Amino acid sequence: MSVQLAKNILTELESLVLIDPHTHINPHAPASETLADIMGYHYYTELAHSAGLPKSQIEEPGLDPKEKVGRLVEKLGDLDNTIQVSWLVEMCQEFFGFEGERITTDNWEKLYDTATAKMAEPDWEDQVLKHSKLEQVYLTNEFDDPLEGFDSNRYVPCLRTDDLVFHLAKPTVRERLSKATGVELSDCSALVKAIGQLFEHFTSRGARACAISIPPTFSPAAVDSSTMEPILQAMQSGRELTSDEQVISSQFVFWTLAQFCSEHKLPFDLMIGVNRRVYEDGVFQGQDLYDSRVSLIQYRDLLNAFPDVTFPISVLAATSNQELVSYAWIFPNVVTNGHWWYSNIPVHIEQDTKARLQAVPQTKQIGYYSDMYKLEFALPKFAMYRRVLAKVLADDFVVARGWSEERAIALGQLVLRGNPERIFARP
Amino acid sequence: MSVQLAKNILTELESLVLIDPHTHINPHAPASETLADIMGYHYYTELAHSAGLPKSQIEEPGLDPKEKVGRLVEKLGDLDNTIQVSWLVEMCQEFFGFEGERITTDNWEKLYDTATAKMAEPDWEDQVLKHSKLEQVYLTNEFDDPLEGFDSNRYVPCLRTDDLVFHLAKPTVRERLSKATGVELSDCSALVKAIGQLFEHFTSRGARACAISIPPTFSPAAVDSSTMEPILQAMQSGRELTSDEQVISSQFVFWTLAQFCSEHKLPFDLMIGVNRRVYEDGVFQGQDLYDSRVSLIQYRDLLNAFPDVTFPISVLAATSNQELVSYAWIFPNVVTNGHWWYSNIPVHIEQDTKARLQAVPQTKQIGYYSDMYKLEFALPKFAMYRRVLAKVLADDFVVARGWSEERAIALGQLVLRGNPERIFARP
Amino acid sequence: MSVQLAKNILTELESLVLIDPHTHINPHAPASETLADIMGYHYYTELAHSAGLPKSQIEEPGLDPKEKVGRLVEKLGDLDNTIQVSWLVEMCQEFFGFEGERITTDNWEKLYDTATAKMAEPDWEDQVLKHSKLEQVYLTNEFDDPLEGFDSNRYVPCLRTDDLVFHLAKPTVRERLSKATGVELSDCSALVKAIGQLFEHFTSRGARACAISIPPTFSPAAVDSSTMEPILQAMQSGRELTSDEQVISSQFVFWTLAQFCSEHKLPFDLMIGVNRRVYEDGVFQGQDLYDSRVSLIQYRDLLNAFPDVTFPISVLAATSNQELVSYAWIFPNVVTNGHWWYSNIPVHIEQDTKARLQAVPQTKQIGYYSDMYKLEFALPKFAMYRRVLAKVLADDFVVARGWSEERAIALGQLVLRGNPERIFARP
Repeated sequence: MSVQLAKNILTELESLVLIDPHTHINPHAPASETLADIMGYHYYTELAHSAGLPKSQIEEPGLDPKEKVGRLVEKLGDLDNTIQVSWLVEMCQEFFGFEGERITTDNWEKLYDTATAKMAEPDWEDQVLKHSKLEQVYLTNEFDDPLEGFDSNRYVPCLRTDDLVFHLAKPTVRERLSKATGVELSDCSALVKAIGQLFEHFTSRGARACAISIPPTFSPAAVDSSTMEPILQAMQSGRELTSDEQVISSQFVFWTLAQFCSEHKLPFDLMIGVNRRVYEDGVFQGQDLYDSRVSLIQYRDLLNAFPDVTFPISVLAATSNQELVSYAWIFPNVVTNGHWWYSNIPVHIEQDTKARLQAVPQTKQIGYYSDMYKLEFALPKFAMYRRVLAKVLADDFVVARGWSEERAIALGQLVLRGNPERIFARP
Repeated sequence: MSVQLAKNILTELESLVLIDPHTHINPHAPASETLADIMGYHYYTELAHSAGLPKSQIEEPGLDPKEKVGRLVEKLGDLDNTIQVSWLVEMCQEFFGFEGERITTDNWEKLYDTATAKMAEPDWEDQVLKHSKLEQVYLTNEFDDPLEGFDSNRYVPCLRTDDLVFHLAKPTVRERLSKATGVELSDCSALVKAIGQLFEHFTSRGARACAISIPPTFSPAAVDSSTMEPILQAMQSGRELTSDEQVISSQFVFWTLAQFCSEHKLPFDLMIGVNRRVYEDGVFQGQDLYDSRVSLIQYRDLLNAFPDVTFPISVLAATSNQELVSYAWIFPNVVTNGHWWYSNIPVHIEQDTKARLQAVPQTKQIGYYSDMYKLEFALPKFAMYRRVLAKVLADDFVVARGWSEERAIALGQLVLRGNPERIFARP
Repeated sequence: MSVQLAKNILTELESLVLIDPHTHINPHAPASETLADIMGYHYYTELAHSAGLPKSQIEEPGLDPKEKVGRLVEKLGDLDNTIQVSWLVEMCQEFFGFEGERITTDNWEKLYDTATAKMAEPDWEDQVLKHSKLEQVYLTNEFDDPLEGFDSNRYVPCLRTDDLVFHLAKPTVRERLSKATGVELSDCSALVKAIGQLFEHFTSRGARACAISIPPTFSPAAVDSSTMEPILQAMQSGRELTSDEQVISSQFVFWTLAQFCSEHKLPFDLMIGVNRRVYEDGVFQGQDLYDSRVSLIQYRDLLNAFPDVTFPISVLAATSNQELVSYAWIFPNVVTNGHWWYSNIPVHIEQDTKARLQAVPQTKQIGYYSDMYKLEFALPKFAMYRRVLAKVLADDFVVARGWSEERAIALGQLVLRGNPERIFARP
């Protein structure tokens, strides 16, 4: 009974037109041109590498896209069980009429050619959006992105701030900031002014959020300009920062961002928990891991200091989900946000979704985002999430709590569509 | 099949008369007088606040109870999904004949008035206990509670010791201790004597446990009187303690409590993991959160030093449950105790119950306590627990291990009733 | 439907002949002689002790085996719910024709005598292996084990290195090392040479892995000989090491082991997370617990430094499983390995298996090992694992992803048999 119920609920959720509130889409080349754009996604390259394909085979300079796909296909058998490969097969079935259940050395070339032809159709981007029922796709723009040449209603800008917070000591980052804003970073107040100009620029172009990914060791804190000033001067003089100074610089910039989020009524997406470059010889974007020993208690001061800033929070480790649920249950300004990266597999999505739906106000949950680099990925990723969501709604609400199907469906629609639309709406 | 099985088991468990081994009931006013006593429970105020209701609306001085309920009802729609609101609806259905599935701005006034009339009946307290099948309700009494004027067989005293352990440095706490015991805290031996008198007083009035809630950073340790003495003198002289001194004071008092638990054969309920006042502007009792990075290894010395003291342990974070299971599996003096606060939602209860029933001796598990402030809450909270318990017994024991229904029911009865009765029995 | 599916898959998995890639079998006495050998397993003694049986009753010097079993049986009722007791009953049913569902004070004597007679049959060892469908059993040999007098194709040697890494400062350990290798540990290069000779000896006798269990605080690191040299000299002079020196010694030896694993193409089994002797008065082997606050980030340098060493990793705490999955998903040299000790109960096996099958390349997962001390345990332990595995394959692959039964069964066969065979094969 519960299986049929879940199917009914799923059917209703599938009719929903979606907003994807966090992606890495390049709005100037949102869709793929060959299967290599899809299989070059780090999920496939890193899994193939993990299963034994040498990095040199994957990242050979000048490698032909078709040859690259051919090499990756050789390893697909080893990855066959992964949910990521199920996305790949589902994309190929949905977009290219692929009828197999596996992509193998025997069938990939035909598939590759079919896909290339399909992707060459002039309206491919629109086809993908339509078939995926995607209305809006949020971007993650570098802070010096001019945000020009694309439809910012379809592709919604968001200000990514990792470089400013964690790499301001790099001369290239400061130069990019000066160039983007026309402000010379002579002192702290100039730095603050420059950051403020980024917010002006981004909000004027329709930005809906400021976003950052954060290592597990970081704790935001208020830092006085007088404490930051000598550190900024040290950067400018070319002296290498101590690790304490590096932390203070990060805290200063981070707190400044929160202040501007408050001023501009912009949600501040926090993606908490990633350690960068843990596997130094990994493939591109396949080097990052984490230390699950992180707590939202590290964000205590921040959450208290900015009651009027909405913080949609993503956590990397499933073990952090209960804290996220509890903090969202208590703090008005904390919103649960999607299922990130290493937690973006059904087993964790299911447990995390159950906890959120059981204990966080329904208006404070952003169900899902795809985190995609190419448009084609939204379809299988949202499909995976919707299946889990439908199952949880059937089991925990209709069966366990006696809700009507309609009521359960309405809850699903809210977390899938209603909430991201409302939470990221400009005031 | 498994759904029907779970129903059969549930029916049997529902016939059980209960002991509620941890509550915050005021024995002089155990039941509610209006719906505001129920909806004023921090679960509803904090969730409504989290969903956007200003604290000033909830905690306005002199606010009329009915007006307060009306304001909270405005936000109930946003909390509709939470298990806490399902408790509220179930209470209203069971106690006040409420027939809706939601409490809304359209139906709450009638419900409020019905409830008020019902609660005004002279035997309301008895009605609630009877309808809830509740035989005994354990209290959590401040250490200076005279424990007079109530039936201590129905409302069983327990000695709450948070203030002594964590706030002895506050003059008011020491004054209360002196006043309650007639002992002037001139030195450490006087302090120990005073604490001993609390145990005399409490056990003479039928107390069944000593209880404390503990932050994640605390590690119990034995402290010499000679180390504590200057710290006590510093308190008495009015000097503010260093944080190291504060820790030593907490450890000294905590260890002294354990010694008296040993002497008086009193179980020592440890509720591990809460950080107080994390959200400083939260509503009353809606400010506490946690850092899930805590380990029972911090209790290693304590558990080794007091083999004859039973420690019923509650953990706040679900991620601590496996340690709790493992420590209860190894240490004879560790007992698993209920599902506390942020872990008291079905998704965590289910996983935690499975682990406990699979690996901890069945005689060492206290299934559930309500933690309630008003009597009406035991009914929906125990009902939630029983449903999860019945499902776990059906799935993991009858289906997966081929047990008979009778055998599974007996296991359920033991953790629900037999164990709390035996573990907290006076010797 | 899903229940029937799981049964079909289970039937197929049950036909598989197994390799057990991690046990503590003594190859000179692999099978039990009386029920006391089985019930003397620490799982039963520690649980009975935890439930109240005094250690003195269990470990009384000169205690008759039958008397010991009789005493333990008195407590079995309290442990009836545990999965460990279900193993015991299943062993008795499978091997000794026991027909009860519980072992009680009424039926144990007959069972004991039947078992003793059965175990006295000259081919008992072969009977157990055949009935359990066990082809190969990996050992965990002390480093100075001569590895003689047994069939090393059936009982495969593995080099256990706990003593070398964590107890080199003990004179007895260094003496054993000198004696086993004929190398006097005059300096660091002699120490390295001696360790190298262990690898020569073990690999010449067919060893398939180097193995170690590690406390949660340990972080491997490269240490120069020049840093280790004075510490080794301090040991030799009889001076007690500081805790920093102890750590450096452990790191030096550990890193040296990894180097020899690389040289000899030997997998290095890491069993991460155990704290030894936490419960000091516990029964034999029932004293160890853990601190779940451990991260694989501590192994970052090791995993980067030895890309050609395969590290099958076991974690003690379920909360570490997601990190293990993620590290195995990224690092080519990380393999997930079984379900260890406190995580070896169905609730954790199920969640951990789901995560691994959803996100780790299928070729990089060693499904299960028994960790047994006596041969009879492989049967119920692998049976438990297979039941969970069959359920996960049915639910997550056949039902949720539309796989055929055959495809799901092939995945199960790979993690149960194909992978351990291939991963531990000598090059």
